[in-house]
Amino acid sequence: MSGHTQFPPSAGLAMAAEVAGQPLLWERLLDLHRARDSETARAASLVAARRPRFVLLVARGTSDHAALYAKYLFEVLCGLPCGLVSPSTMTAYDAAPVTADVLMVAVSQSGGSPDLVRSVEVGRARGALTLAVTNRADSELARAAECHVDVQAGPELAVAATKSYTAQLLALYLLVDRLRGGTGARAAGLPEAGARVLGQEAHLAGLARRYRFASRLVCTGRGYSYPTAREAALKLMETSYVAAQAFSGADLLHGPLAMIDPQVPVMAVVAEGRGGDAMLPVLDRLADAGADLVTVGRASVAARADAAVVLPEGLPEELSPLVEILPFQVLARHLAVARGTDPDRPRGLKKVTETL
Amino acid sequence: MSGHTQFPPSAGLAMAAEVAGQPLLWERLLDLHRARDSETARAASLVAARRPRFVLLVARGTSDHAALYAKYLFEVLCGLPCGLVSPSTMTAYDAAPVTADVLMVAVSQSGGSPDLVRSVEVGRARGALTLAVTNRADSELARAAECHVDVQAGPELAVAATKSYTAQLLALYLLVDRLRGGTGARAAGLPEAGARVLGQEAHLAGLARRYRFASRLVCTGRGYSYPTAREAALKLMETSYVAAQAFSGADLLHGPLAMIDPQVPVMAVVAEGRGGDAMLPVLDRLADAGADLVTVGRASVAARADAAVVLPEGLPEELSPLVEILPFQVLARHLAVARGTDPDRPRGLKKVTETL
Repeated sequence: MSGHTQFPPSAGLAMAAEVAGQPLLWERLLDLHRARDSETARAASLVAARRPRFVLLVARGTSDHAALYAKYLFEVLCGLPCGLVSPSTMTAYDAAPVTADVLMVAVSQSGGSPDLVRSVEVGRARGALTLAVTNRADSELARAAECHVDVQAGPELAVAATKSYTAQLLALYLLVDRLRGGTGARAAGLPEAGARVLGQEAHLAGLARRYRFASRLVCTGRGYSYPTAREAALKLMETSYVAAQAFSGADLLHGPLAMIDPQVPVMAVVAEGRGGDAMLPVLDRLADAGADLVTVGRASVAARADAAVVLPEGLPEELSPLVEILPFQVLARHLAVARGTDPDRPRGLKKVTETL
Repeated sequence: MSGHTQFPPSAGLAMAAEVAGQPLLWERLLDLHRARDSETARAASLVAARRPRFVLLVARGTSDHAALYAKYLFEVLCGLPCGLVSPSTMTAYDAAPVTADVLMVAVSQSGGSPDLVRSVEVGRARGALTLAVTNRADSELARAAECHVDVQAGPELAVAATKSYTAQLLALYLLVDRLRGGTGARAAGLPEAGARVLGQEAHLAGLARRYRFASRLVCTGRGYSYPTAREAALKLMETSYVAAQAFSGADLLHGPLAMIDPQVPVMAVVAEGRGGDAMLPVLDRLADAGADLVTVGRASVAARADAAVVLPEGLPEELSPLVEILPFQVLARHLAVARGTDPDRPRGLKKVTETL
């Protein structure tokens, strides 16, 4: 019945298991966080004591999208100006910016990429409070930073990162929430919401059949959902080899809209909240361009779309990215298998990418 | 003889004229800058007096690539940590980050986008020294900022920005150079170098014929050349409607490399200097993936490529982005005309994009 039964039954099984396990993983992370001396709580105390005035985030690949999410958290919820570091300035160009009063947060699944380690070493030497958020407490990055938060996602076997991404998002959310005096209570509904999204697998498999022959895709979102659009595009690229491009809804109107035509499916994240509200005029422009539109998010826009994935209501907007990415992870796996590739082992990639 | 003679002779003429005029425009900007009380010099004095400790850049579209270039300049040459602002944090989410000791630089051709104006207003109210870099001294953005630099590119008629982009790069370079005590003397060779690149038009028209049927493209570069890769991809998207993706050479290895196959042309900027050096291992990985490779930059890599555009030697690396983008502008126009579209008037776009 499904379009992928003719492919080896083992293709994508590691990714499938890692995607499916996320709600339980979040549940465990939230439990751990309730202990007052959790790693996240200790990191938050240290940050609060140092009172940084700027935040620099440093990451690559999927973790860069978690860093971008953290940028929105720090800017919107903490009123701290933020920047994403271009590691090459510190590796290729030996830049050594003065980083007194700076919180530098490095995000990495493996904690193994030399350029991130180097950036943290430079930041630390020049005055920054350095925090590593990794899935490997024994990593070089964890050792290089003054402070470490283990996202505790467990070993990730599929090359395409899934559970480590949402574990990073949750750890970063809990850190910022704790900085603001929260206890993580607003995240209590996450595991249930995640399980409900993953329960739509049959619908998502149907979407994969619909887009099996697309060679290009555009993902878009605004605000907290912009990192989702970026990560969705990366997941589709690295597993299905489709040319997936991501733009913030605003940037899309500054140029790339020209290449949208009925042959290019557009996947728009339209969550509850302000980021989703800001997407509504973008949907109008996409309709003018004749785009084939998939909406992921609020039920109220589903009628405007060619296909829709409706997400549970009631989560705070800043937690929406954890559940928004799930349908894209499932879609990426089904699309990859339908196209005859193994999403656990994309061609040309290794699990730990070491860049200088 | 050329692949585009059957199209209306008027298609792309505005873009052609604006591209061709850049070396003369740079010459004039350099002349103006030699006057000690130039706008750039006055802005530099103001910045020097306020001694910012952090730089925030805010821009959209093509100007965002000029802002990214400025980020490298400030980080590498001034040792100042930088961030690119996500305007939605200040518009959709009403964030009001504390920006004492911050230099906020807004870059925009028109100076008319409400989200940039709003970001500058918030930054200024919260303590930042605000600087607008625009092509319209009478724009709202110029008025909103404490200080304004007019890039003096003259009216830009083609929707696809070309001359305003390199004028922004030059203005930002001259600002940073002046901050460091320079007089712009190192830029003296720019106009001549630009004219030599534009003299390769016949070769570039040939490249357009080679890629006329490509529906996807990847542009890549590192360091100072990463903004070039981003701007090149945008130019190709908005004029030729090709799905052009840009990645830093390092980010390419963290996932997107998987989708590279012999059907996806890769255009790699490999300039003289450290950014280009850091691209050499990326070229090896692209060769492993069987990519069709175009190099733009140093002569020494031309033999490894399927096609090459060799740029003049001898410019300081940080000025290379001005000449690197020229072949892509020419290529974008030829490709658009060859594909039957008018690069002066891309579908779905207006010259001034107003986003909230």
